[in-house]
Amino acid sequence: MSPKITGELLRLLRQAMKSCKYFPEPVHAYIVPSGDAHQSEYIAPCDCRREFISGFNGSAGTAIVTEQHAAMWTDGRYFLQASQQMDNNWTLMKMGLKETPSQEDWLISVLPENSKVGVDPWIYAADQWKNMSKALTSAGHSLVAVQENLIDVIWTDRPERPSTQLRTLGREYTGLSWQEKITTLRMKMTDRKISWFVATALDEIAWLFNLRGADIEYNPVFFAYAIVGMNTIRFFIDLKRVNDPALRSHLQLDSPLKPELSIQMFPYESVHSELQAICDALSPKNKVWICDKASCAMTQVIPKNHRTPIPYTPLCLAKAVKNPAEVQGMRMAHIKDAVALCELFAWLEKEIPKGTVTEISAADRAEELRSQQKDFVGLSFPTISSVGPNAAIIHYRPLPETNRTLTVNEVYLIDSGAQYIDGTTDVTRTMHFGTPSVFEKECFTYVLKGHIAVSAAIFPNGTKGHLLDSFARAALWDSGLDYLHGTGHGVGCFLNVHEGPCGISYKTFADEPLEAGMIVSDEPGYYEDGSFGIRIENIVLVVPAKPKYNYRNRGSLTFEPLTLVPIQVKMMNTELLTQKERDWVNEYHRNCREVIGAELERQGRKEALQWLIRETQPIV
Amino acid sequence: MSPKITGELLRLLRQAMKSCKYFPEPVHAYIVPSGDAHQSEYIAPCDCRREFISGFNGSAGTAIVTEQHAAMWTDGRYFLQASQQMDNNWTLMKMGLKETPSQEDWLISVLPENSKVGVDPWIYAADQWKNMSKALTSAGHSLVAVQENLIDVIWTDRPERPSTQLRTLGREYTGLSWQEKITTLRMKMTDRKISWFVATALDEIAWLFNLRGADIEYNPVFFAYAIVGMNTIRFFIDLKRVNDPALRSHLQLDSPLKPELSIQMFPYESVHSELQAICDALSPKNKVWICDKASCAMTQVIPKNHRTPIPYTPLCLAKAVKNPAEVQGMRMAHIKDAVALCELFAWLEKEIPKGTVTEISAADRAEELRSQQKDFVGLSFPTISSVGPNAAIIHYRPLPETNRTLTVNEVYLIDSGAQYIDGTTDVTRTMHFGTPSVFEKECFTYVLKGHIAVSAAIFPNGTKGHLLDSFARAALWDSGLDYLHGTGHGVGCFLNVHEGPCGISYKTFADEPLEAGMIVSDEPGYYEDGSFGIRIENIVLVVPAKPKYNYRNRGSLTFEPLTLVPIQVKMMNTELLTQKERDWVNEYHRNCREVIGAELERQGRKEALQWLIRETQPIV
Repeated sequence: MSPKITGELLRLLRQAMKSCKYFPEPVHAYIVPSGDAHQSEYIAPCDCRREFISGFNGSAGTAIVTEQHAAMWTDGRYFLQASQQMDNNWTLMKMGLKETPSQEDWLISVLPENSKVGVDPWIYAADQWKNMSKALTSAGHSLVAVQENLIDVIWTDRPERPSTQLRTLGREYTGLSWQEKITTLRMKMTDRKISWFVATALDEIAWLFNLRGADIEYNPVFFAYAIVGMNTIRFFIDLKRVNDPALRSHLQLDSPLKPELSIQMFPYESVHSELQAICDALSPKNKVWICDKASCAMTQVIPKNHRTPIPYTPLCLAKAVKNPAEVQGMRMAHIKDAVALCELFAWLEKEIPKGTVTEISAADRAEELRSQQKDFVGLSFPTISSVGPNAAIIHYRPLPETNRTLTVNEVYLIDSGAQYIDGTTDVTRTMHFGTPSVFEKECFTYVLKGHIAVSAAIFPNGTKGHLLDSFARAALWDSGLDYLHGTGHGVGCFLNVHEGPCGISYKTFADEPLEAGMIVSDEPGYYEDGSFGIRIENIVLVVPAKPKYNYRNRGSLTFEPLTLVPIQVKMMNTELLTQKERDWVNEYHRNCREVIGAELERQGRKEALQWLIRETQPIV
Repeated sequence: MSPKITGELLRLLRQAMKSCKYFPEPVHAYIVPSGDAHQSEYIAPCDCRREFISGFNGSAGTAIVTEQHAAMWTDGRYFLQASQQMDNNWTLMKMGLKETPSQEDWLISVLPENSKVGVDPWIYAADQWKNMSKALTSAGHSLVAVQENLIDVIWTDRPERPSTQLRTLGREYTGLSWQEKITTLRMKMTDRKISWFVATALDEIAWLFNLRGADIEYNPVFFAYAIVGMNTIRFFIDLKRVNDPALRSHLQLDSPLKPELSIQMFPYESVHSELQAICDALSPKNKVWICDKASCAMTQVIPKNHRTPIPYTPLCLAKAVKNPAEVQGMRMAHIKDAVALCELFAWLEKEIPKGTVTEISAADRAEELRSQQKDFVGLSFPTISSVGPNAAIIHYRPLPETNRTLTVNEVYLIDSGAQYIDGTTDVTRTMHFGTPSVFEKECFTYVLKGHIAVSAAIFPNGTKGHLLDSFARAALWDSGLDYLHGTGHGVGCFLNVHEGPCGISYKTFADEPLEAGMIVSDEPGYYEDGSFGIRIENIVLVVPAKPKYNYRNRGSLTFEPLTLVPIQVKMMNTELLTQKERDWVNEYHRNCREVIGAELERQGRKEALQWLIRETQPIV
């Protein structure tokens, strides 16, 4: 892939920074974060401002442009990709390495005295603002809110904001009506003496109202805000969408059951002025809940003495603990997904020796097979279909210019998932269709040991996921190896494939404790730059465990894999596995064979069934 | 033990709170933290204000007294002890349990509107002040600094502040002269453009000047402050101490080598006014380094725009990484300490059946045996000598009223350590002198597995200790067990037995990465309330490891045990150990036999040598 040519764009941006047209004084540095006004991880094309200015399109990264420099901060998943996508106007700042300065420290080191650093307050989170502003102020600079986005100013062919049709979900999928969810939310507000709750995260709004959209690729969400009071519900959305009779009926717009469950619809753009009006009318003791990751623009409307910022909203916490209907949906989605993958792997095995399968065609085939399954909606993220050295690029996505042919000589890594109406999937398998090298098998086996160590871990109720992260690394560390990403993320139910507030990572400490009903990924890996990549990922459900003892009646938890796709035995050096680990593999494969075998049989997919049976033979 | 009667004291304190004599308005709540003006963990008798008002004498706890309530927050180590030492005027707040409110939340729930919460700013850390003040302010209350300590007001027979003789340490012990340490500190100040550094932690001041005192029991420190500028060194101390010719010579008070290494001595009490004077003369760009855990009183003298608070001072970081002379000293101290313990255990084995050994007499015997070793100074903390149910009280200390006789029917736990001029020790062994129960052996073996998992862990350079904490718990968790304390703490070299900035605990995230040369404890445990307690503790040195691979050239680390005292094989259920764990035990015991055996031989301690040889037989 060739990098984007950014010289002229940077010239235009610097001109806008200096012009005083958008801010009364020249701006000496301009921060371009990757998020949208809802701090979404995946964003609509109209919000891809950081990609527009730099060429780097990974899911995480922050660009900062000064008069002299252009620098990009991103994490270990994207070091290789970012260095390939950006031209030499850009300096890559590798986060997590000791020698890499923080954005604040870097700004302070390069800026002339008393500089102004600009940022669009709509796409900068309140907590980011606070930290950055404090650091800059203490060094004699200042962080300033530039209301007009300077990238938009120079982006002449910027796409429109999407406004797709909305889909309503019944209780059979959601387990709870939106009215019940509102009532629960209001109970929590009453408990904490909160008068208003401002919802800004798109997945929380979709979850709350049991609605889904397609405004952002891979994420079934739609652009909206909601403000919930004790007696009112204000919903901010492109009003053209509200004409749909199914939506009107779902939201009971024309005949609300109770006045306090009547929803008032407002244009998306009016949220700032409506929130302003609400805040103007607050009585002294009224408190407003807003997530501390919400935009600076929305947060700062709320006067400080009325603002109660929270790291995770009650919606985020409620959404993370799946109810029985959601768990059942996730189970079903994972069975269908496994069927598609067994078909894919059986097909790959047959086709690869012919030399006709590429990373892209394999990804396309995976999508096609998934789309044959009931209630398929789309992919849950861009398929990482990567072979040989490409698999060492952790969040690689095959492009025509990087596309490699799959052969019997290289390790193939596919990380893929889908949205079904009943659930979201995300699974990674690493396979060899010829004979893996001793080193590849060794690394695969360490990664597998880490995967099992997390999946089979028993831990007390109240344990935070980050305490399990080292379990995934111990076998790699023992041999001097490691991987530069977290081990797991929360997964939504027909929602975002990455969601808070739980996860398994050495990088967070503020994660919420794991609870029965939460769903996370377990995905350790190993990446040998320029050579191969390995990752083994299952989605796992937190379930109660019943060990021998029950210290202080706290109860214990463990994980149950929802993903049921064989893990390639050919890649394992079984001599490196303990008996407990071999038992785990055999029990997992028995389960795959039983559950997925039955569904393959039902769907009449004989080749895949044969493949499944062969791949789930017990190991000794 | 019977609780302290506190009704009258609380009445007097509440009277002082209301009197307006010490603060212009009535104070509705008064916080009594456990620390002194240096935020020491162990404190001098004159600073035991929290114990004075409540009776609870554990090392950690915060009392809050309102007009109606008296509440004590402490952690899992002290739940039992605190509940036994406090009368029913007090409510125990068990930190770490979900249902326990934070101090802030509790204050907000019990206080009438617009209340004043008082605290002595000298014994309250700046970061505590900030958090507490913010929480109270947002609920309409305020945190106020009451200059006169209200406990001192009612404490009629409060002891004097100690002023013991100071001991100077030569380079053979410290590896670096104080002049070299000052020079290194100034280099770091220059790097970060810092003009002044304020040292408030007693162990940092002792380390910096290569001096030791005995002002606080168990901790060889002395009451002092130091302020270091680029050309001046100001030392604040009881001036009576400065007449000692050895001290004058060590500090070169009468003939400084260079003007910038000339130390100006000031009275201890004048630190506030001197710092004020320094701050008054600061030029606009001057910055002052102070630890964010320093007292509020000291911190707030420094104007905010000149203040650079840091979580760990450069002295704290430098002190944690032991230089070769310090490592050598620590090794020697641990050899001597092991000799004393081998003697103790051989003696206990002989004496216990006679029924004449108690928790107190065993502790006394341990101290006596340690005191026979070269350069013994004193204990490094109160010996935890505990048998049967007493050992379930995590930081138990035997008192005449709780003292139990050691028998062949109960598990004995001894956690003890000493200060030698060359190093500090801290070791826990759990032994049975008869036949342990199956359950006791099972629990001991899980604890041992956790101990080994940490001790033998290989991990990348840059890893923080908290990432290793779960390794210590995995075997216990697997069986539904756990322990409610951290796994390890930093250890000073002839300094405090607990020191930052590294450690191994699920509770911290802000610890500094482990580095070769750091020394920490490895001490998982298991406590069965009312029945028995188990802990296995070694002091371990962080050393480079050489695993098979070296991912991204980061290098790896592991631990080397400095403690060399046999771990009782009789308490192990060796069937529960893996081959790797058995190998670890045998290698450890081989090492104990070789190193400690030679020293026992040299000292002619035949019985102990026989005991050592028997206790270090290989297991199969």
